[in-house]
Amino acid sequence: MATLVVHNQTSSAQDAEALQQAFKGWGADDKAIIAILGHRNVHQRQEIRKAYEEIYQEDLIVCLESEISGDFERAMYRWMLQPADRDAVLVNVAIKNGTKDYHVIAEIACVLSAEELLAVRRAYHRRYKCSLEEDVAANTTGNLRQAIGYHAIPPPLPFVFLYWNVENVHSSLLLVGLVTSYRYEGDEINVKFAQTEANVLHESVKEKKGNSEEVIRILTTRSKTQLVATFNRYRDEHGISISKKLLDQTSDDFHKVLHTAIRCINDHKKYYEKVLRNAVKKFGTDEDGLSRVIVTRAEKDLKDIKELYYKRNSVHLEDEVSKETSGDYKKFLLTLLGK
Amino acid sequence: MATLVVHNQTSSAQDAEALQQAFKGWGADDKAIIAILGHRNVHQRQEIRKAYEEIYQEDLIVCLESEISGDFERAMYRWMLQPADRDAVLVNVAIKNGTKDYHVIAEIACVLSAEELLAVRRAYHRRYKCSLEEDVAANTTGNLRQAIGYHAIPPPLPFVFLYWNVENVHSSLLLVGLVTSYRYEGDEINVKFAQTEANVLHESVKEKKGNSEEVIRILTTRSKTQLVATFNRYRDEHGISISKKLLDQTSDDFHKVLHTAIRCINDHKKYYEKVLRNAVKKFGTDEDGLSRVIVTRAEKDLKDIKELYYKRNSVHLEDEVSKETSGDYKKFLLTLLGK
Repeated sequence: MATLVVHNQTSSAQDAEALQQAFKGWGADDKAIIAILGHRNVHQRQEIRKAYEEIYQEDLIVCLESEISGDFERAMYRWMLQPADRDAVLVNVAIKNGTKDYHVIAEIACVLSAEELLAVRRAYHRRYKCSLEEDVAANTTGNLRQAIGYHAIPPPLPFVFLYWNVENVHSSLLLVGLVTSYRYEGDEINVKFAQTEANVLHESVKEKKGNSEEVIRILTTRSKTQLVATFNRYRDEHGISISKKLLDQTSDDFHKVLHTAIRCINDHKKYYEKVLRNAVKKFGTDEDGLSRVIVTRAEKDLKDIKELYYKRNSVHLEDEVSKETSGDYKKFLLTLLGK
Repeated sequence: MATLVVHNQTSSAQDAEALQQAFKGWGADDKAIIAILGHRNVHQRQEIRKAYEEIYQEDLIVCLESEISGDFERAMYRWMLQPADRDAVLVNVAIKNGTKDYHVIAEIACVLSAEELLAVRRAYHRRYKCSLEEDVAANTTGNLRQAIGYHAIPPPLPFVFLYWNVENVHSSLLLVGLVTSYRYEGDEINVKFAQTEANVLHESVKEKKGNSEEVIRILTTRSKTQLVATFNRYRDEHGISISKKLLDQTSDDFHKVLHTAIRCINDHKKYYEKVLRNAVKKFGTDEDGLSRVIVTRAEKDLKDIKELYYKRNSVHLEDEVSKETSGDYKKFLLTLLGK
């Protein structure tokens, strides 16, 4: 369930006018902005943006960007975009910022439904004039691969060097496979596949020298229902969940991406709870993670995630957010959290 | 331009009734079937199927399958399916028949637009209860990979053995990358990329020991416009087109798939002309290839392909088809060819 509290609006045009009023004078009336936009659903927000454009010949998002700033501005910007467009922006930032935020790419690719992911790919075309997979592939290990080369016949390089390189190729292949997937969404489970593929995953996780191509094939092509059956099979056989097992050993990029993908497919609410926990526990707070989860899930299942958070940490998420953030940013997040 | 000659119909119901008349008695009236269905466009054919279902509570396609047979039946079956559904069937047959018809998979993935390919993936879900990429990945080198293993740290196997294995992994990765692509379709060209990536392709083609991962990345993620610029750059630099160069050396599956993909992206009409030429020139005629091209292109650009055929072979395609086929199959193909 969602946390967003939607207030009845009189009309999109009235909202647009009220926002324009809030922008007037020195310093915007942030309270008024939050009171309006923090209580409108995705459809209403798009209508307000349209009405604003019609009345004032200006893009509401551009106006917001010039009127507010910092974490509040970034969160509001993402809130105002259509979900597919927002996810396209999130992936693009993760690709381009150079800090290897591969988990954001894997998260979006694995949490969304097949049609939702496709909508992100369409939005990516419109916004960045290239395909999503093109940017992921070219930016994850492109330069590395070009510089060193990864030959069909292994080149006479020390094995350790080759290993390093191959791991990078694998994380890139896994990411590209995840973002290009269009998974079957039926309920069918093949018990035999679940068994054999749980073994393949076990081989890969165990000391990390298994058959990575097979792991990539399994994770990027099987349906989520089938994968969950495979993960269950793994846990039954080895007495530990595959994500816990991976956590013990996660160090290289490939296994990190694998870990995120498995957790998002297995139980994305639990995954988001952990992202929030890490975000508020981190020294200095991870505003990117905090805003991302709250903005993307407020209209979907943030209520369930909040409950999981309380169950796991014995403290309310709202209280943690209150403690770790301040000002309009704090007010906005708490509004989206339904407070 | 299309070759299909569409006749005005009075109504889908009348067509359905005429077909039912044609099915009566011992042996169907194939002439009547061709006279109707060989002159209806994709929309009309779907309407006739619907009308037939409503009037007789039977699926027209199933009735056709029981009334006619052989190459005629197979061609008619494909003609009666919606294009995306038909392509899903074609890919499935190519995946499952065990004769490594990888060129059919590459052809469909590379000739279709991004949205058309996506429609095939949707149709594949509906028909086969799994994703297209799932079947391609599991059936191209799955067993081989599992049997031998392809390790991050190269196993102590003779290099020639590893090479063989890696080539199979690469052809699978290339095929999966092609069918999962959702290419950007804008006109932008990056001249610098065209230059550097023409070099990467050159390295791969030259003695076939280049950087296959990079080749896969380029072929599966760049827009078609960008790729054509890269292929042109290659030709300018090396005085020979990359597809001609590949033809000289094509032997392993990876380079065969690469060759098909490049030809389909570069000029799919020229590619289809060659498929038709090979189909009729082959000892015993390749009915699969012949039907596939005629059925899939009759409503699109078969007229252009026919003209190319005449230009290249100084003989009319219709005359070749007349010579190489017979009976109702021949009548049907010639009807679709606009004769």
